[in-house]
Order: sequence, then structure tokens, then C-alpha cells
Amino acid sequence: MVTMIMVLVITCQFLLINSQNHPLDPLNPNEITQIQHIITTSHLASLPHLNFHFVDLDEPDKNDVVVRGGGQTHEIIVELTTGYIVSDHVYEGDGYPPNTFSELLQAARLPFNSSRFKDLVLRRGLNVSEITCFPFTIGWFGESTTRRAVRLSCFYRNGTTNVFARPIEGLSILVDIESMKIHTLVDRNTSPVPGSEGTDFQFSGERPNPIPIPCDEENVKRGFSINGGDVKWKNWRFHIGFNARAGVIISTASIFDGGKNEWRRVMYRGHVSETFVPYMDPTSDWYYRTFLDVGEFGFGRSAVTLVGSMDCPSNAVYVDGHMAGADGLPQEVPKAICIFERYAGDIAWRHTEVGVPGKVITSGEPEVNLVVRMVATVGNYDYILDWEFKQSGAIKVGVGLTGVLEMKATTYTKADQMKENIYGALIADNRIGNNHDHFITYYLDLDIDGNDNSFVKAKLKVERTKTSPRKSYWRVIKETAKTEDKARQRHGVEVEASELLVVNPNKKTKLGNNVGYRVMAGGQPAVSLLADDDYPQIRASYTKYQVWVTAYNKSERWAAGFYADRSTGKDGLAIWSHRNRSIMNKDIVLWYTVGFHHHPSQEDFPVMPTLASGFELRPANFFERNPLLKT
Amino acid sequence: MVTMIMVLVITCQFLLINSQNHPLDPLNPNEITQIQHIITTSHLASLPHLNFHFVDLDEPDKNDVVVRGGGQTHEIIVELTTGYIVSDHVYEGDGYPPNTFSELLQAARLPFNSSRFKDLVLRRGLNVSEITCFPFTIGWFGESTTRRAVRLSCFYRNGTTNVFARPIEGLSILVDIESMKIHTLVDRNTSPVPGSEGTDFQFSGERPNPIPIPCDEENVKRGFSINGGDVKWKNWRFHIGFNARAGVIISTASIFDGGKNEWRRVMYRGHVSETFVPYMDPTSDWYYRTFLDVGEFGFGRSAVTLVGSMDCPSNAVYVDGHMAGADGLPQEVPKAICIFERYAGDIAWRHTEVGVPGKVITSGEPEVNLVVRMVATVGNYDYILDWEFKQSGAIKVGVGLTGVLEMKATTYTKADQMKENIYGALIADNRIGNNHDHFITYYLDLDIDGNDNSFVKAKLKVERTKTSPRKSYWRVIKETAKTEDKARQRHGVEVEASELLVVNPNKKTKLGNNVGYRVMAGGQPAVSLLADDDYPQIRASYTKYQVWVTAYNKSERWAAGFYADRSTGKDGLAIWSHRNRSIMNKDIVLWYTVGFHHHPSQEDFPVMPTLASGFELRPANFFERNPLLKT
Repeated sequence: MVTMIMVLVITCQFLLINSQNHPLDPLNPNEITQIQHIITTSHLASLPHLNFHFVDLDEPDKNDVVVRGGGQTHEIIVELTTGYIVSDHVYEGDGYPPNTFSELLQAARLPFNSSRFKDLVLRRGLNVSEITCFPFTIGWFGESTTRRAVRLSCFYRNGTTNVFARPIEGLSILVDIESMKIHTLVDRNTSPVPGSEGTDFQFSGERPNPIPIPCDEENVKRGFSINGGDVKWKNWRFHIGFNARAGVIISTASIFDGGKNEWRRVMYRGHVSETFVPYMDPTSDWYYRTFLDVGEFGFGRSAVTLVGSMDCPSNAVYVDGHMAGADGLPQEVPKAICIFERYAGDIAWRHTEVGVPGKVITSGEPEVNLVVRMVATVGNYDYILDWEFKQSGAIKVGVGLTGVLEMKATTYTKADQMKENIYGALIADNRIGNNHDHFITYYLDLDIDGNDNSFVKAKLKVERTKTSPRKSYWRVIKETAKTEDKARQRHGVEVEASELLVVNPNKKTKLGNNVGYRVMAGGQPAVSLLADDDYPQIRASYTKYQVWVTAYNKSERWAAGFYADRSTGKDGLAIWSHRNRSIMNKDIVLWYTVGFHHHPSQEDFPVMPTLASGFELRPANFFERNPLLKT
Repeated sequence: MVTMIMVLVITCQFLLINSQNHPLDPLNPNEITQIQHIITTSHLASLPHLNFHFVDLDEPDKNDVVVRGGGQTHEIIVELTTGYIVSDHVYEGDGYPPNTFSELLQAARLPFNSSRFKDLVLRRGLNVSEITCFPFTIGWFGESTTRRAVRLSCFYRNGTTNVFARPIEGLSILVDIESMKIHTLVDRNTSPVPGSEGTDFQFSGERPNPIPIPCDEENVKRGFSINGGDVKWKNWRFHIGFNARAGVIISTASIFDGGKNEWRRVMYRGHVSETFVPYMDPTSDWYYRTFLDVGEFGFGRSAVTLVGSMDCPSNAVYVDGHMAGADGLPQEVPKAICIFERYAGDIAWRHTEVGVPGKVITSGEPEVNLVVRMVATVGNYDYILDWEFKQSGAIKVGVGLTGVLEMKATTYTKADQMKENIYGALIADNRIGNNHDHFITYYLDLDIDGNDNSFVKAKLKVERTKTSPRKSYWRVIKETAKTEDKARQRHGVEVEASELLVVNPNKKTKLGNNVGYRVMAGGQPAVSLLADDDYPQIRASYTKYQVWVTAYNKSERWAAGFYADRSTGKDGLAIWSHRNRSIMNKDIVLWYTVGFHHHPSQEDFPVMPTLASGFELRPANFFERNPLLKT
């Protein structure tokens, strides 16, 4: 399969974001190497178990570099030009930076040096060389946290490449990451390992029809250019960056206004801020699975190399991603991002007019959009993350969920055998697909036609009338949110129908309307249902609302707090919002959460058909008229 | 533009649904002609003003043919084989069949023979030969209705082809359709006619990039076949029909189950049932605009000839639509439907697995879907109606709104001049885009793996736990709706999170799960906000809920009742549902409403960028496993 795909990729182009030509660009590999050198030749070099957790200058901040060594978190500011460490501060608050992939890998290997582990799996009749263990972050449940730790879940491959399909249920290994030792190892052996039959997801057989877009190169007049991270396409220009935590970062997105003959800013910066994935199983081996994928693992670190003609169409151009590894040295994800023009067969606008005598006038345009895509595979799940730019001025943000479910082994093979609550659904022989949620939260520093913006709720209020044969109608009552508490919103809930807008109160159209953008749900809305006093919910309390607006603060970018691993809810979006700052005519940040409740079904096995949702930012009186019509 | 497009269409194919080879097929032109002959040579021929309103045998019913003559509605059953009229029944209930387009056209021309009209427009300084009048249905507001009537709204073209952009505000003409005479003609002359500048929507200038899908024929190995109305594509087969009221009708849709090696039914029949479009302006010339587009006009009658490479990509195949005209003779809409494979660049499924030592395994498939599309242009608005079939078993129903707003002339040219409620937004010089809703309701006679189905609400219920470090989780409580009242649902409202399913309680997977399909919102949900006692809401009371389920009854297909013009709410979905029949393990019909609240913005002028929403039917334990993976 992989070979076959490579053949189709011959027209692909590879680009490297390698020039530090944009203020919001991440570090290039040279700069990463420089920083590594500065730190490894400083007093910090002597710290035991030195690991680089963040090397990230895409906005100069107190957390330019975060290393851990000697069991402490050091926040370091480095001056690249002089080679000096400007400051070195030990962070003593709650939570930890993400475990590095190097640490996670070491942790996952520990059981294979443990004779107790080998005994236990032998007693189960398993071949130890066919076992894979994955490190899961463990969340926080009210205990005092003094050390970093992960729990390993182990799986039996023997006969399958779908590792997650054969859980060794009841085997639980707590690893102390600081000492890199097994802390506890138990085997409750609650259920035998499910079989391998039917678990493979590898594509077998011939692809039924070759994908014919675009079928020959001369027709591919690519409509966009990439220079460094600067992308220009039709009436859009924006910048793409990449870092270990967020993955793709879109910045300084502006649209050309033909009427005004000028570029107008829409978004200063946008990226995934956090992802909350609580599983709905309170039992011993499952309760802790309440992942904050972005803060605990990182979407950049989890970015995969995209496969041509499968992950992206054959007209895509690829961009590599760079970040620092645990050793501080540059790491590359080849083809981490793809950019392509999307010809989906949609209609951008049309009208047939029969009102002109003797004529039938039909006019319109097909829709051609530009998509920027990455895929983050965090263990079993694959997140497809799209930014889609439309010539109408809209930006559509798409989230697709695919990959493999987290499954629990069970002795059940028939749904009607089950009398107890199984916390999910029987989706394959001896396998429960556990209930869970996904909340993908976006940081959207919109700058609608300038820096200072306001958030407006346009409520649809039903009025009764006695002066008309009609008895009722709705009108729009616009309320500008003065403070952060007025901006929290469960979007899409019809109890109070409203349109949500970010407007520039300082800019009006010629007609006198405030220029703005609307935010619209792109799928069935979902917010977290967990109890407010439940620990995972305390850590991800922002997931109770789809929409938040905060006053811009450069250190407020990660919805569950900067140190998300084992966090206790003392940092993050809800905390900042409760400061209740003024957000009227200010530089404001819109936070939007795309949510999914997932009660699995058999179709999700052995690999899930993509489940898609998202949202759209759509111009609302930003332009004087429909920008698709050239004047 | 039109010429340019025609050049691109050279590879298109045209098909005619002309064989009566499917029990759900509409009449073919020969049969229509036969019926016309039978009726025009019978006693009915002597009726004054004989008009054919429905000639529709796609399900034999008491309403096989509906004609009006002598001010009465005749419901006629015709036996085609013998040429006999089996029965002729005069309908005496509320409401009327839709005015025929021939009647509407006659009505629209009446003012031009009226010296009073000519005087009034001359007094406004308008050139009568540049005026177009459109007939609007007038709804019902509690009065007793004894005659059919429409109100004309007139527009000034002079310098534009965008007829709706220049309303002659305050000019109102009530036409008695029975006598085909003007009943009342008033000119309140509330505002001058807005100018023509910037109103044209015709595409001018060069298309920036030719659309490269699929660009040459040898690459277009079309994956589907059409024989009569029978479509086969990948693992799907279904039938397409067309009638004057619904437009496209999908029937007997079945999917091939590779595991069982059999075709399994998903949907017996699905089509648009009704469309409710209330404007939110209670003033004299606007209050009555509360359209039931399907029942009052007909989506088949409003179907447009699709334009290649604009309305549908160049790999589309076209099908003509047929129906009876007002004279009973066959009418054709050339290229009323297009069918194409959609290569949108999406990913059907994927996974990257790093858990197998020494390997990175990436597998997946791009998504290729089949789309069946029509466009209904009802006056100013264009509805893009898609049925999209996925190889995963999902059916995605898409609704796109584009075309021209209904606009109201105003003296205002600046938003800040306005102190009163204008019932909309100032969207162009001297033009208000009036607030309104669109509710597109689908009739979905699902037959999930057989005739008898049940409707299940899978509620996500939050449970507290004291036996876990966790305090809460949600579990799924499935409730089968026993009767119709238990199936009404405001979908997507998080007050009570739930998944909605249609299951076959008589069929289980090997694992013992009930086979089923889920229905999922595809955009921001919206239900009608009008007061329950308001007349338009009484007529379209079903729009208070997105979801209804009824027991199958062959005469219950049109949500606002069969005779929707001037209906009074005595027929229709809410009435049927209130019979509260059993819907458990029965042949049931799912009704789903896609809603939009539309508070216009300047971008909607002079023509709207498409606003899209929809819903998806997604298999949930219908298959033993992901059907995208061939075993």
C-alpha cells in the first residue's frame, strides 16, 4: 500500500520553512541548535536527567525554553544574538511540561526489563516479544502531585498490526518518570486478550478507482505560492508556522478587498490550543484516561508525515515541520503540512433569473478553496486538522476524527450477555469501545480589520405584535459583551438563538454597519457533561462552553494551562476569563471548542470512518458587498 | 458567461428517465399525455378554467390527478390501462393545490393591462416596460378562505438583470386567481426605487483558473451507471425519480454488505417534503411572506437546468426531469439532476501506527462520494439540494442557500440614520435585507435492513460515582419511542444530549447489537421561533422540532399538508403525529428539518455566497465492522 501510494506522489513538491523572515515564525533548525548549545554549555548542563520540553520562541515570553533536570522545571530566557542565558527561573506551581517522547519511549520499554512483568504475561500465555506498551498520562484526582508519572497500557500484537485492538486488560504499570522506574505493577487479569482476527486495518486489494484530481500537470495551474511560510492564494495571504505543541499555526491572515484596493487583516494568529478527551469509565484501569492531548503530548510532536493521494490530493504541496527534540537538537517531521486547492464540486454562488422578459439568466461560480492540513496521531486517534480558506472571505476550520478506538477487553461476545454497565458498547468480539468525548479548542486571535475588536451577541428575540395580521416575528438585539463573563456561550443551543460576531467597533462600512465576522457551528454542538466538581472537569473547565472571549495576553494561549500534565485547574482559560477583564474595543481572543460525544459502534472497528465537525468564520458586513463578485 | 460554460460542457451526457421500470417512478411523458387525453375527453373537459395541478402516480393514491375547474378542486383517479376515470371527488377542505405556473404567469401580467397601474408607476417616474411583477403566495391569517389569490410584488429592471434588487416598495396588487382579475391595487409609495448601481450578479471577467476535475476523459473512469432511474455506484444502489412537487426523489437505496454478501435496504424513499420561509416583518407589504415553497410552488416545478462546470463538476452526468404542465401535457426540465463522483480531498479513514517495533505503518483511503444534485430556484432564492452517498454507508444530505435576498426599499443609506425597527439589516444603498428563516424538511422513509423499524433516543445521562477517584461520567440510556409524541426532538440542543437512531429491532449483528442508523446534525441547528398561536406557525407547526417520527401512511408525505396554499394547519405532520400512533417495530418515517435563521449582511448583496447546512445518516451497528475495509 505504502509503495503504491509513493508512485502516485511523483508530482509532489517539498518545501522547508527555513527562513526566520516572519515575526511569528517558529525557530529554524539552526536557531534550535544554537539554543541547545547555549544551554548544554551552561550551568544547566550539570542537571541530572536534563530534558528539553519546550524550545519555542514564536512569541518571546518568559517560557522561551523549558527544560527539566534534577526533578525541577526551569524556565529559561535565552538571548540568541549574544548567546547569553538572560534568566533561569525554577517553576514551583502545579503541573508539568509534557513528558518528552524520549521519556515516554524509555517508560514504555521498562516492563521488558522487569522479571515480574515477564512472569505475569507468561502466566497469561503471552509471548513477551509480541507486546507493545503505551504510556498514558494519568491526569489528576485531587492528590498532591510531587512527581511526574505515566501509566502503561500494554497490548498484544501477535498476528496484527492494529496494536490497540488487543488490550491486555487489567495489567497496569505506573512509571515514575523522574526516576524512570516502575512504581507499581499489577495484573488484575480481568479479561483474556481478544483475538487478532479481523483486526487489521491495512488496506488490502486494489484501489477501486484511481483518484483523478487533477489528472495532468498542465491543468494544475497552482493558484498559490509559498515563500518561507508566507502563502498567497487568490484574495488571501497568510503565514504558516509549526511548533511542537500546537502543530500548524496560521498567522497574519489578511484578505484583499477589491473595493478598497487594500489588504485587510482577519486573524493575527490561530491554532489548536488544547484537546480534552475524557473516557467515561470510572473503573480502576480506565478512570484516569482524561487526556489533554495538546498539553500532555503536543500536536506538533504527534504530527505525522502525510501520504500523497491518501492524506492529501495529488495537487498538494507539502511543508516540513521542525521542532526541538528532548535533547534540544532539531527534529524534522517531513511533510507535516499539506496545502492544496480543493475542488469539491460545490457552488460558491448561483442564481437563475427568469424575471427578465424573454431570457433565462443563469450565473454563478464553482467553489474553489485552499486547504492547509495536518494530521496529529496521538496514540490510537488520528486528528485531521484543516484550515480552509474561501474566496468569499470565510475560513472554515475542520476537525476529522479517525484512527483506532481505545478498547477494553471483555469476556463478552454477545450484547445480550451483559447485565452490568460496560461503559461503552460491544463493538467486536471481546472488545468494548469505551464511551468518550473529544473537545478540540481553538485559539483565535482575530484582528478584524485591525487590532481592537468587540464580541457581539446578536440575539434573536421573539416579539409579539398587535398591529399586524401576524402575531409574532423575531428581531435582532445586539449586545456587545463588556467583560469576559458576558462572552461565555453554549453555541448552537436554541434555548436562546443568537448569532455570535467579532466586530471592529472602530470601522464601519460605507453604509454604517460595523465590520465583523460571524462564528458558526459546523456540526452538532457538544459541550462537556462531566460534573463541575469532577477533577478532569476542573482541569478542563473551559469545555462547559463552546465560546469564550478573553482580553489578549501573550501568556494566555493554552486553554488547560501551560503546564497541563497533572495540572490542577489553577491555570487556563476559565481562570483567566474569571478575571473578568474588559473585552470591549480591545485586542481580544476568541476560543472555540469543537466537541464530539462518542458512543462507539461496530463500524468504528478496526479503524474508524472519519467523523467530521468544525466551525466557520464568515464575514458579516466586513465587505461592502459579496467579494466573490469582481466589480 | 452562459456561452463560455456551454463550451466546457462538451463531455456531458444527457439521460432521460423514460421507462416505467420502477414501482416508485413518476409518470413518463407518454403516460402524462395519456392521462391528459383521458381527462380532456371526459366530462371534466367542460369545466371552466381547467388546470392540471398534480399528475402524479409515483404512489397510487386518491390524489392521482388533481385538477381545478369551475372554482373547485377535483381529485381524480385514472386507470391508465382502460382509459377510465375511476373516480372524481370534489375536495371541500381548507387549502388549495399550488397555483400552476401558467396561472402565476397570467397573474404577473395583469398589471400591464391596468391603466391604474400604469398611472401609478408613471407617477413614480418609472417606465412600465422595465417592470417585472412576481406573484407571491399570501399565506393565511385567520380569515375564511374561499378563493385562491396571490399578491404581486413589482420590481424595476431598468439597468439591471438582478430584478429583485430594485423593489417598487409599497406597490401591492392582490390578484384573484379564480377570476384572474386584480382585486386590489394600492401604492403606499413608502420609498423610492433603489438604484441599479452595483446590483448585477452576472459573472464578468475571466474565470481565474479552469476547474481541473477531472480534466480528461480517459481519467474519468466513471464509477457509476444509470439505467432508467437505477443508479449503481460502488457499494450503493438506489433509484432516482422526479416529480413536480418534491423535485428529486431517492428511493429503494440499498447498500451491499460484503460480509453478508447481500444488498441491505437503508431507505425506501426520501425527498424534500416542505420548505417554510417566514419573513420577520409584520408591516402591510411584508407580513404575509410566509412561504411554503414546496407546497405552494413545487421544487420540481422550480428545478433549473444545471450548468456544467458551474453547478456540477465536469465529470457529472445529467438527467432530465419530467412532469405535467398546467395543460396536463408533459413538460421537461433538461438537466434537472446531476450525478457526479465527488473528490473533495477528504480522508475516508487513516491511521499511523508506531507501536510495531521498527516500523511506522500508515494506511488509509481518500474519500470518494457520489452526489445527486438538483437546484430549485423559487423566485429570488436558489436551493442547492444534495444527496451524497458514502462508501462507509453514510448518506449526507446537504442544503445550500444562494441566490438573491428579498429586499425592501428604504430611504435610508446609513445604518445610524435608523431609529425605528427595520426588520432586517441595511445591506446596500436604500435596501434592507429582511430577516427570515428557512426550514427545509425531509421525508425519510427509512427501512433499515427491512420494513419494520423503531426510533431510539440514546440519552447521555451523567452519573455520579463514589467508587472511583472520578466523580462523574456519562452513560447511554436507550429509550425506544413507543408513540409518535415521544419522537419529537429539538436536535442538537445540549440541554439533553442524545444520539438519535432508527434501528431494526428484528435484526441484530452477530454481536447482538440492533442494526441501525444515526441521524446527525450537519450544521448549527435552528427551529422556528415564531409564537405557537401565530398563523404561519399554525400552518408549519412541525418546524418547532427538527425531528419527528410517524407511522407510515401513504397519504402522509407533505409536512404542511397536501393542499398547502392558504392552508390552515388542519393537515400536516403535526396533526398526524398528534394521533400518537405506535411507532415501535413499525414501518416508520423520519422527518428531519434543516433550519437557518438569516439576518442578512452586506456580503449577501447582490447575490449570496452559499450558506450550507444539512444532516447525515450514519450507520450505527448496521455493519459488523467498518465497511470501508474490504475483508
